Amino acid sequence: MKIGIVGLGLIGGSLGLDLKALGHEIFGVSRKESTCQIALDKGVVNHSSTDLSLVATTEIVIVCTPIEAIAPTVAKLVPYLSPATIVTDVGSVKQPIVDACTNLWHNFVGGHPMAGNIDRGIDAAQTNLFSGAAYVFTPTETTPATSVAKLEQLAISISSIPYIGSATDHDRAVAWISHLPVMVSASLIHSCLQEDDSEVLKLAQSLASSGFRDTSRVGGGNPELGIMMAKYNRQELRRSLLKYRQSLDAIITQIEEENWDNLEEILQTNQQTRPKFLN
Amino acid sequence: MKIGIVGLGLIGGSLGLDLKALGHEIFGVSRKESTCQIALDKGVVNHSSTDLSLVATTEIVIVCTPIEAIAPTVAKLVPYLSPATIVTDVGSVKQPIVDACTNLWHNFVGGHPMAGNIDRGIDAAQTNLFSGAAYVFTPTETTPATSVAKLEQLAISISSIPYIGSATDHDRAVAWISHLPVMVSASLIHSCLQEDDSEVLKLAQSLASSGFRDTSRVGGGNPELGIMMAKYNRQELRRSLLKYRQSLDAIITQIEEENWDNLEEILQTNQQTRPKFLN
Repeated sequence: MKIGIVGLGLIGGSLGLDLKALGHEIFGVSRKESTCQIALDKGVVNHSSTDLSLVATTEIVIVCTPIEAIAPTVAKLVPYLSPATIVTDVGSVKQPIVDACTNLWHNFVGGHPMAGNIDRGIDAAQTNLFSGAAYVFTPTETTPATSVAKLEQLAISISSIPYIGSATDHDRAVAWISHLPVMVSASLIHSCLQEDDSEVLKLAQSLASSGFRDTSRVGGGNPELGIMMAKYNRQELRRSLLKYRQSLDAIITQIEEENWDNLEEILQTNQQTRPKFLN
Repeated sequence: MKIGIVGLGLIGGSLGLDLKALGHEIFGVSRKESTCQIALDKGVVNHSSTDLSLVATTEIVIVCTPIEAIAPTVAKLVPYLSPATIVTDVGSVKQPIVDACTNLWHNFVGGHPMAGNIDRGIDAAQTNLFSGAAYVFTPTETTPATSVAKLEQLAISISSIPYIGSATDHDRAVAWISHLPVMVSASLIHSCLQEDDSEVLKLAQSLASSGFRDTSRVGGGNPELGIMMAKYNRQELRRSLLKYRQSLDAIITQIEEENWDNLEEILQTNQQTRPKFLN
C-alpha cells in the first residue's frame, strides 16, 4: 500500500520504519530538507519531499505534525487528495482536531497511537515503538466504516492494540490518566519550591528518593507538551482537576479530623484498584 | 562493638546483616521466637531472644520496631541500660519520638535511615540496603555529641550518607518529599475512580501507561504506612498539603484563564529545578 506520512518526528519516523519494514511504500513529507534526507538514509521512507504534493498517489495519509499544525496541514493537503484517500492524525487530543478536520475532509479518522519517548525528532525514531501500545481511533457518525477498519488493520500490523471510541470519551479518558497526572505532579514540584525555610528545602532535596522521583516525573517534563495538553484538552482537563481537588480536600479533611478509618479505606481501595490501570 | 537491635524486620534485619558482616557482635530481640531463629539462621545476629534483657551489655541499641512501638519499647528497655548506652531508632517521623524518648533516656539520638523496600519482615532483610541512602540523625540540645558522632560513624560504615538536623526540619522535609507525594498520588487514584461514566473509566484504565503508573505508585502502596505517616507527621503533612493546594489552585486558575505564559513559566521552573531533588 502507498502510505503518506506528513511530519517526520519521533512518531512519524517510527511509523515509517515499521510500515516500510512491512512492505508498504512510504511517502514522507517534512518542512526541512535535512529531515527528508535523514528519513531516506534511516530507511524511514521510500520517497521524501518538503512538498505536500508528494502524497498525491497514496491511499492513507498520516499527519504526524505537532498538534496545532494538524488541521492547517489537512487544509493544505486537500487539493492533492482523491476522494478515497483516508487521512488520519496522531494528536494526543481528539475533539478539536476531529471537529476541524472532518469539516475539511470527509474521509478523516482521528487517531492517537499512545506511545512516546522522552526524545524527539527523526533521530529518535525507532522500530517497534508502538508494540503493545494502545492506538485509539475516534470516528464520527459520518466516518466511512471501511476507513476505520483499514486503519485498525494497520494498527494491528505494527503490534499496537486498537481502541475505537468517541473523541469525547478519548479526551476525557486521557485527561484522567495522562493530562491530570502532569498537573498533579507539576503542583507537587511547584509547592515544594514554595518552602520558605531554605535549610528545610535543602534537606528535602537531599533526602528525596524514589517516591518523590516517580511522583514528580511527569510534572518536571517538557513544558511545551504540558501547555499543549492544557490548551487543547482544556475543558476535560479542568473537569478532572476539579474532581481531583475534591479528592484532595477529602483527604486533607480526614487528616485534619484524624479520621484514620476513612483515610485507610481510601488507601485500601487505591491499593486494590490501581492494578486495573496497569496493563 | 556489641550492638543491640530490637525489632528484626526489614530495617532491623538488614542493619544486622551489614553490621555483623563488619565484625560487630549483634544482639537481636524480636517478639516472635520464630523470627529469632530465622535471624540466627540468616546470619543477621549472633544472639537472639524474645527478652529485652538480651541487650543489657551492648553499647548501642537500635530500636527498629514499627513507629507506634518505639517509645513504649524504649521505656521497657531503660531498666536494662547502663548510662553510657546509646539508644537510637529508625522511625520515619522524628519530633514525637525524639520528644518522648529523650524524656525516657538521656542518651537517645533520633535516627532515620532512608532506605526501604516494598517487601517487609526478616525474610526481606538484605545486605547493602542502606548503601548510598541518606541516614538522618536528629539530636536535641541535650544529646551527647559523642553519641551522635559514634552513630554517624556507624552510618558511614554501612555506606549510607549521614545528615544531622533538627527533628522539626527532618519532619518538614520528609513531609515534602515523602508524605505529601503519597497523599497527592492517593488523591489521583481516588479522583479517577469518581469518574461516573463507566465507559470512560474503562477506557482510561485501558489507556493508562507510564505517566499514570509513576504518578500513582506511592498512592497505591501500603495503606498502613500511609496512615502511620499521616498520624505521626500530621502537622507537617497538613502544612505541606495546604501549600500544595495553593499550587494546584494556581495551576487550575491559569488553565481556566488560559494564562499559558504563566503556566509555562511554572512548568519550565519545574523542569529546571526537579534535578535538584534527584541524587
